[in-house]
Amino acid sequence: MSDPVDRPLRAVALGGGHGLHATLSALRRLTDDVTAVVTVADDGGSSGRLRRELGLLPPGDLRKALTALAGCDDQPWREVFEHRFGGSGALAGHAVGNLVLAGLLEVVGDPVAALAEAARLLGVTGRVLPMSTEPLDIEADVTGLEEDPTTVRRIRGQVAVATTPGRVRRIRLLGATRRTERPSACPEAVAAVLDADVVLLGPGSWFTSVLPHLLVPELHDAIVRTEATRVVVLNLVPQPGETAGFSPERHLDVLSEHAPRLRVDAVIADADSVPTPDRLRRAAAVLGADMWLDGIAAGPVAGRHDPDALAASLRRAITSVRGR
Amino acid sequence: MSDPVDRPLRAVALGGGHGLHATLSALRRLTDDVTAVVTVADDGGSSGRLRRELGLLPPGDLRKALTALAGCDDQPWREVFEHRFGGSGALAGHAVGNLVLAGLLEVVGDPVAALAEAARLLGVTGRVLPMSTEPLDIEADVTGLEEDPTTVRRIRGQVAVATTPGRVRRIRLLGATRRTERPSACPEAVAAVLDADVVLLGPGSWFTSVLPHLLVPELHDAIVRTEATRVVVLNLVPQPGETAGFSPERHLDVLSEHAPRLRVDAVIADADSVPTPDRLRRAAAVLGADMWLDGIAAGPVAGRHDPDALAASLRRAITSVRGR
Repeated sequence: MSDPVDRPLRAVALGGGHGLHATLSALRRLTDDVTAVVTVADDGGSSGRLRRELGLLPPGDLRKALTALAGCDDQPWREVFEHRFGGSGALAGHAVGNLVLAGLLEVVGDPVAALAEAARLLGVTGRVLPMSTEPLDIEADVTGLEEDPTTVRRIRGQVAVATTPGRVRRIRLLGATRRTERPSACPEAVAAVLDADVVLLGPGSWFTSVLPHLLVPELHDAIVRTEATRVVVLNLVPQPGETAGFSPERHLDVLSEHAPRLRVDAVIADADSVPTPDRLRRAAAVLGADMWLDGIAAGPVAGRHDPDALAASLRRAITSVRGR
Repeated sequence: MSDPVDRPLRAVALGGGHGLHATLSALRRLTDDVTAVVTVADDGGSSGRLRRELGLLPPGDLRKALTALAGCDDQPWREVFEHRFGGSGALAGHAVGNLVLAGLLEVVGDPVAALAEAARLLGVTGRVLPMSTEPLDIEADVTGLEEDPTTVRRIRGQVAVATTPGRVRRIRLLGATRRTERPSACPEAVAAVLDADVVLLGPGSWFTSVLPHLLVPELHDAIVRTEATRVVVLNLVPQPGETAGFSPERHLDVLSEHAPRLRVDAVIADADSVPTPDRLRRAAAVLGADMWLDGIAAGPVAGRHDPDALAASLRRAITSVRGR
């Protein structure tokens, strides 16, 4: 897919985890100029262990984005990056790529340069950037954890928020080192959003992978100001925990509540995952967006997007918006 | 340095650790066709932890050989491979390259292919091979550990042997998995020795890094049979522990005791490290070798060879032997 001036479409996908993997896998079918802007608030699993032990950016979501954009030749590095040590020892459960990224971050220092080096190794088409160059913490106001259902409790950390049995009302993002509510953005990520033709939000864990980008002030401003086509891709199923019971339209409401100035051009959802299309169309319209319902689920694997179908849906939506 | 038929000199260096690093650094100044054949009996430090936890070849000596032959361009991988995680957590002390090699070994399976992949990443000139494709254990007969100085105790493991306060009399090599005294050689290492123009033994920890190659039967036979020029490079100082108090000529006696059929063409030693040159000349002659005394120590750093001086010394010795 390319622009009238005949350069490839510049696409930026914001997110983390499996959701970002899905959009990156779809976007690379449309263009070679893909930039992933990745959340750095994870505190669970191999990433959380490395973050606590070494004080580094949690590498797991960065690793997943790198391997989503990795070359498909016969080099083994993509598989090595995703390989996890087994057994029951000190390394059990660590993804090898997380350890490589930790080493690169310590040696190279600058996360953008470190990620560029890993991208070269993996034959990545495009770029992977952290949304912030410092590790971040998610904090959520949650109701439903006490007898009085209106009592608001403050929950800290991505794992705690993602798995809370309560109802997440609002999240904040804190710099893990300086404890500021104005965490600094990665400048290259801000520039990528401002220079983009298309910016994608979602799918993914809504509070812990999609929303955080809107809570980094400079990144929020870039997303609001950019002349790019803004596309929101909704989840196929509500996440157990943080968005249990959330309707598709409620996902859009949450975006507006956290970023009132956000305007969106297109909202893409899986046709079979939207019980009340009219409500979603109205919620999309509130953000300024058209709704696109397509069959984008990956068949039998519940909760996964089909990259080819998502790519086709993105192409239609983007062409329509940009043709206006 | 090249052959009459105008191909680069084929050099094979056998060893492990810092000693092998020294010969590889020197050899790469003479030729592009260097093969390192690396001991895989380490059970200490980061390597020992990985070996025990994952049941893999101990990667540390392989890593050191790879970085000794690594390219000198501005890529950070050489530094990343040698970087060790700090702190006091589960990863403290692990060299990043050891973790990468562990991941590659698990994913790729074949150690030769895994090492070739790491070599590509590091821009290695030459090849790094394990002496055996299975982890090995060193077992030593040691005297001087009990009141009766003639009592022989059996000591197991590279660290235990290298640091024993007793006197090492004899070592054996056991396959760590099959507990056989006939551990299998890496076929590519055997072929490299047979095809070589020059084969180097030493310097290094004599019992735990230099001798083991002679105790892998197929590798021993290749070293004995090859038409290559065989060169022994002696240590600058006796190792505390395993060779404390050993004279230069005693090092040669130890080789003969463990490999009676071994013939050598040249013995190179640092002139200032040989108190009785006549004795060393005689011990060398017993093996069939000329003695070469040169200033090959790296100045103020006690115990390290100077790669340029060692390269010059090797060139002289090899040219002389091959010109006969």
